[in-house]
Amino acid sequence: VRTRLAPDARREQLLEQGVRLLATRSLEELTIDLLTAEAGVSRGLVYHYFGSKQGFHRAVVQRAADDLIAATAPPEVPDEVERLQASMRAYVDYVAAHAEGYRSILRSAAGGAEDLREIYQSARTALSERIFTSGGDLVPDTPAARLAVRGWASLAEELTLAWVEDPEAMTREELLRVLVESLPALLELTS
Amino acid sequence: VRTRLAPDARREQLLEQGVRLLATRSLEELTIDLLTAEAGVSRGLVYHYFGSKQGFHRAVVQRAADDLIAATAPPEVPDEVERLQASMRAYVDYVAAHAEGYRSILRSAAGGAEDLREIYQSARTALSERIFTSGGDLVPDTPAARLAVRGWASLAEELTLAWVEDPEAMTREELLRVLVESLPALLELTS
Repeated sequence: VRTRLAPDARREQLLEQGVRLLATRSLEELTIDLLTAEAGVSRGLVYHYFGSKQGFHRAVVQRAADDLIAATAPPEVPDEVERLQASMRAYVDYVAAHAEGYRSILRSAAGGAEDLREIYQSARTALSERIFTSGGDLVPDTPAARLAVRGWASLAEELTLAWVEDPEAMTREELLRVLVESLPALLELTS
Repeated sequence: VRTRLAPDARREQLLEQGVRLLATRSLEELTIDLLTAEAGVSRGLVYHYFGSKQGFHRAVVQRAADDLIAATAPPEVPDEVERLQASMRAYVDYVAAHAEGYRSILRSAAGGAEDLREIYQSARTALSERIFTSGGDLVPDTPAARLAVRGWASLAEELTLAWVEDPEAMTREELLRVLVESLPALLELTS
């Protein structure tokens, strides 16, 4: 169903549609044809807003990264572990809801696509920096702790994606416990 | 210096030279021109053995994977933790000695190169399977433990590469301690 929207709202709508399609499609499958069919707009309009398929992919991946960062914003509670728990809960839910696209974005970012790699790295840095600037003393800001957090972020990513593939292996609560408690366990080992 | 070698020995020599070049070069930098210059052979000979640059890359990555699996073979000692320690020590040394190439292989395998991804996945599976078939009881073979080991393998990879970039952040012994002790710590969290 076509509706008339102001240009900015239309661009927003296309981006949201793109992110939604990443729930069950890889980035490679997210073609302009698919988008125009799903959003009921012309190819010309998509090119008008995004310039090219690459431009559209870049904008969708940036939007997905922004959504992930917003969704995992820790609540304003004093307890650090509680903040981490809430963040990781939102992280697991986000990845589970966009598993196909998330995996393909990681793959593209890890592979040759330099612009996607930059968006991914910025998002990952933003997510990790939170851990150091949270103001508590769960994570000391030392070079060793920074290495540990990098390793933990990879663990969290891989474990969450592995769980999405095999959700019977542990419950969501068990996964969350491993994600949350592995961070202090690792930091303990580095200190 | 050119020397006369039997065909198989010559092919071996080219593969070894390729792996050696990955110490300081990425896979993309490992061109046929570089190989011929370093090995003192003709381009024709390289194409004769490997068919194409892709064929050469595939053979070199397979050789590097085989080398890594051989280098990290656990010693025949009864203590499981000691076996894991010896394996991880060899892993860290191998990655540190081939950092540039290792990183680029991960990147290519994670990205679009399907054949390299298969070699990488097989190697990673071989390395992980050891942990389950070692016959001890450090790691129970349960679905949850398998997820944990997948996550731990990503942690080990990322942490080791991060340490190679920033070796001042912790000593090699500290890194090894984190690598080895994080596995039982993670398994403890999943049980």
